[in-house]
Amino acid sequence: MSEKDCEPSEITFSSLMLPQDANPSGKVHGGVIMKRIDSAGGVVAQRHARSNVVTASIDRLEFHHPVFIGNLLTLKASMNLVGNTSMEIGVRAEAEDLKTGVIRHVASAYLTFVALDGDGRPTRVPAYEPTTADAIRRHRMAINRRERRLAERQLEKDCKSDADKCQ
Amino acid sequence: MSEKDCEPSEITFSSLMLPQDANPSGKVHGGVIMKRIDSAGGVVAQRHARSNVVTASIDRLEFHHPVFIGNLLTLKASMNLVGNTSMEIGVRAEAEDLKTGVIRHVASAYLTFVALDGDGRPTRVPAYEPTTADAIRRHRMAINRRERRLAERQLEKDCKSDADKCQ
Amino acid sequence: MSEKDCEPSEITFSSLMLPQDANPSGKVHGGVIMKRIDSAGGVVAQRHARSNVVTASIDRLEFHHPVFIGNLLTLKASMNLVGNTSMEIGVRAEAEDLKTGVIRHVASAYLTFVALDGDGRPTRVPAYEPTTADAIRRHRMAINRRERRLAERQLEKDCKSDADKCQ
Amino acid sequence: MSEKDCEPSEITFSSLMLPQDANPSGKVHGGVIMKRIDSAGGVVAQRHARSNVVTASIDRLEFHHPVFIGNLLTLKASMNLVGNTSMEIGVRAEAEDLKTGVIRHVASAYLTFVALDGDGRPTRVPAYEPTTADAIRRHRMAINRRERRLAERQLEKDCKSDADKCQ
Amino acid sequence: MSEKDCEPSEITFSSLMLPQDANPSGKVHGGVIMKRIDSAGGVVAQRHARSNVVTASIDRLEFHHPVFIGNLLTLKASMNLVGNTSMEIGVRAEAEDLKTGVIRHVASAYLTFVALDGDGRPTRVPAYEPTTADAIRRHRMAINRRERRLAERQLEKDCKSDADKCQ
Amino acid sequence: MSEKDCEPSEITFSSLMLPQDANPSGKVHGGVIMKRIDSAGGVVAQRHARSNVVTASIDRLEFHHPVFIGNLLTLKASMNLVGNTSMEIGVRAEAEDLKTGVIRHVASAYLTFVALDGDGRPTRVPAYEPTTADAIRRHRMAINRRERRLAERQLEKDCKSDADKCQ
Repeated sequence: MSEKDCEPSEITFSSLMLPQDANPSGKVHGGVIMKRIDSAGGVVAQRHARSNVVTASIDRLEFHHPVFIGNLLTLKASMNLVGNTSMEIGVRAEAEDLKTGVIRHVASAYLTFVALDGDGRPTRVPAYEPTTADAIRRHRMAINRRERRLAERQLEKDCKSDADKCQ
Repeated sequence: MSEKDCEPSEITFSSLMLPQDANPSGKVHGGVIMKRIDSAGGVVAQRHARSNVVTASIDRLEFHHPVFIGNLLTLKASMNLVGNTSMEIGVRAEAEDLKTGVIRHVASAYLTFVALDGDGRPTRVPAYEPTTADAIRRHRMAINRRERRLAERQLEKDCKSDADKCQ
Repeated sequence: MSEKDCEPSEITFSSLMLPQDANPSGKVHGGVIMKRIDSAGGVVAQRHARSNVVTASIDRLEFHHPVFIGNLLTLKASMNLVGNTSMEIGVRAEAEDLKTGVIRHVASAYLTFVALDGDGRPTRVPAYEPTTADAIRRHRMAINRRERRLAERQLEKDCKSDADKCQ
Repeated sequence: MSEKDCEPSEITFSSLMLPQDANPSGKVHGGVIMKRIDSAGGVVAQRHARSNVVTASIDRLEFHHPVFIGNLLTLKASMNLVGNTSMEIGVRAEAEDLKTGVIRHVASAYLTFVALDGDGRPTRVPAYEPTTADAIRRHRMAINRRERRLAERQLEKDCKSDADKCQ
Repeated sequence: MSEKDCEPSEITFSSLMLPQDANPSGKVHGGVIMKRIDSAGGVVAQRHARSNVVTASIDRLEFHHPVFIGNLLTLKASMNLVGNTSMEIGVRAEAEDLKTGVIRHVASAYLTFVALDGDGRPTRVPAYEPTTADAIRRHRMAINRRERRLAERQLEKDCKSDADKCQ
Repeated sequence: MSEKDCEPSEITFSSLMLPQDANPSGKVHGGVIMKRIDSAGGVVAQRHARSNVVTASIDRLEFHHPVFIGNLLTLKASMNLVGNTSMEIGVRAEAEDLKTGVIRHVASAYLTFVALDGDGRPTRVPAYEPTTADAIRRHRMAINRRERRLAERQLEKDCKSDADKCQ
């Protein structure tokens, strides 16, 4: 992969699921997948911000299928939206049975990272302008999610000051 | 801990954050915390169901504070709501600076687990009736969350069939 | 767990035994349990001393039962006795079969930790006064153990200077 | 990554180098890189053979640059040559400094894997015909390497039967 | 190491202490050393018994010196005494500063292992007759320790039936 | 092992292969063995140079036999040849089935390490003069390998400037 091949806003991470990734039932530990999703998202954020980053939040995450030891877990992480100091990254996880070639969609997640300066304080990140049709679609959907999150947060605040509204 | 001391619907997990839990910036890797939250929730679910369980989903998770190497990470996992084959577990994560005694709320998460029989198919779990005031409050809030999730899922379905509604 | 709930002289550590904790026979590696016992004791010592601590010794440790992958290992670590710079911590290890709820006593251990200042030299720790009946009983037994250890150490010294006494 | 995007003969593996990958001097342990190179090659071999595979050999491997904690290690593994039961895979390792974007070539390796049937015996693998200019070039070079290896092996045998020849 | 070089009753284990073995103060975790001592003893036991073994107990263990990251930890494990189904193994741990060559005695431990048959029940082990002067000395001291342990166990039993004796 | 017993130019590393060392087929991961070979060689180099070292290259490595979980992997690492700033170390890997005592030769490797000063630059290492017959033989063979490597490197250079020569 030469530098010119690097699309900084999208990275693919593949890893073979080993026995040490198992839970006691013999399948891959859900927490192992979460950890790798977080790690993949963090690399896209760090590559864009060119600074340390910290996970601020992860949106609702559903597991559609179990992952088995010996599967190839492939995570595709893409930049969706960049704010002043925060970035929303989407991660799609797929598991391939290497003996049959069957690939299944395991989970999709949206994570928000915040860029930090040398003293650990939030710092501005470069702007991001999507260019491909796919990136523009993901960008628009990320704006919708951000608005929904802000609305929910306002609702929670209102509930705290006037609990009767929310029962 | 004798058997009678075991409140099956609530368990506390404490662990010392070691250098091997760090990300490159030297703080605890967000994915390490996610993995432990998932693991803690799974134990409460498994103890209630007395069967294997699998993580079905994790609700939006926000990190309020970073966790440092040497901190004691304490997770308090409680049963909130039991359905036919699924269980919602709440996990509260706190980090204690062992040198000062200062404890900070790091994150709270709601996870849904599904009980599996020997063939890996969803299986019924025993009913759960909250008894303490705190458990009753958590139970009622979990019912609210379940309704909201169902509403959101309906909205997503509607959006797919008629995209104009959701722009 | 809010700050007021924290009984600093006693902590419970629970962890799910995973495949990566196994020895080649498929049960939990004895060394894994020792490592976790040491870690649990160290946290109680560090929380009392509010400084770095180092393991000075561990008393005779017997394993009463094997622990299986999938078991919940629960360690209850309590402060027993505080000297000038050292602390004796007791750790009781129990394993729960999450599918049956059966809990077995696995091992009990007494560990001595020494508090260290910033330069790595032993440093004074705050006094400790047991208050509950159980803590008072553990405290008295720890004093007995300390006297026995001192007597044994004297015996070893005498043996070195006059080996005939000890054959 | 949808199924049609999967070029089975080439996979990219990216992973963030964490503190747990360090050697005592603070850089990434050479053995960690070797392990990941082997793992990446094994996935390409397994995906082609659709069976278990075992590492038979790895050709001379030179490290051109150290890798640092926090670097993104990217391995590009490609099928070069397929024999009856064996496959030669090439792996190119690059390290990216995520704070500057500078990418350095770390090492290149050629590994030979053997496909195994259910009883652990070598088993035939499907033929492989390179199609792109780059794959054809890699294929031709792999044939050269195979001939050189066979010649060296013959030389070693000759040396054993007549040591004087080889001094 | 050819088969004839193998002194089955004594094995040396060396390992480099890596950053992932550290506790938060940056030195090697006491529990890591315990785990390796247990593992080293288990190999000597297993090699003698030619069966699975389980750790039954570990005698009082004192740490004389801390171990640092980058040190070479060398464990020398020797068979001391063989009973019907149990074996006492001694392990001596030393740490070498590879930059200066200074070697320090870190800890010594006596572990008892029990041989298990295929059903996990204690099984007879071959007799062991020490031959070298050093092995004979270790054997005699192990017999002393066994007697002392039996006497202590009797004392504990007596204390339980008549607590006044032991205050 | 007292200081006088330490033959600095040769070290034996034994370790029990645990379930966490397995690949998905249940045997020991080839990359795990490579990592341990590299680590063993690095200790011999570091002990000779009394400085940090870095892996420069590893010669062709063939795996003669698979290694199984529960096997004792023994690596014997010896100094073969010392240059100005580099050292060639040979590592022989053997696997012992602890239940039968059968030992098999798994792999042999030649690694080159470079000594680094405090600023990470190559630094001179003390001379090394083999004394035993075995060390002298290994030394002479290492000189042969070095010459062959230099010749190959020259050939590669020639090929780059005049590709027709090498088809």
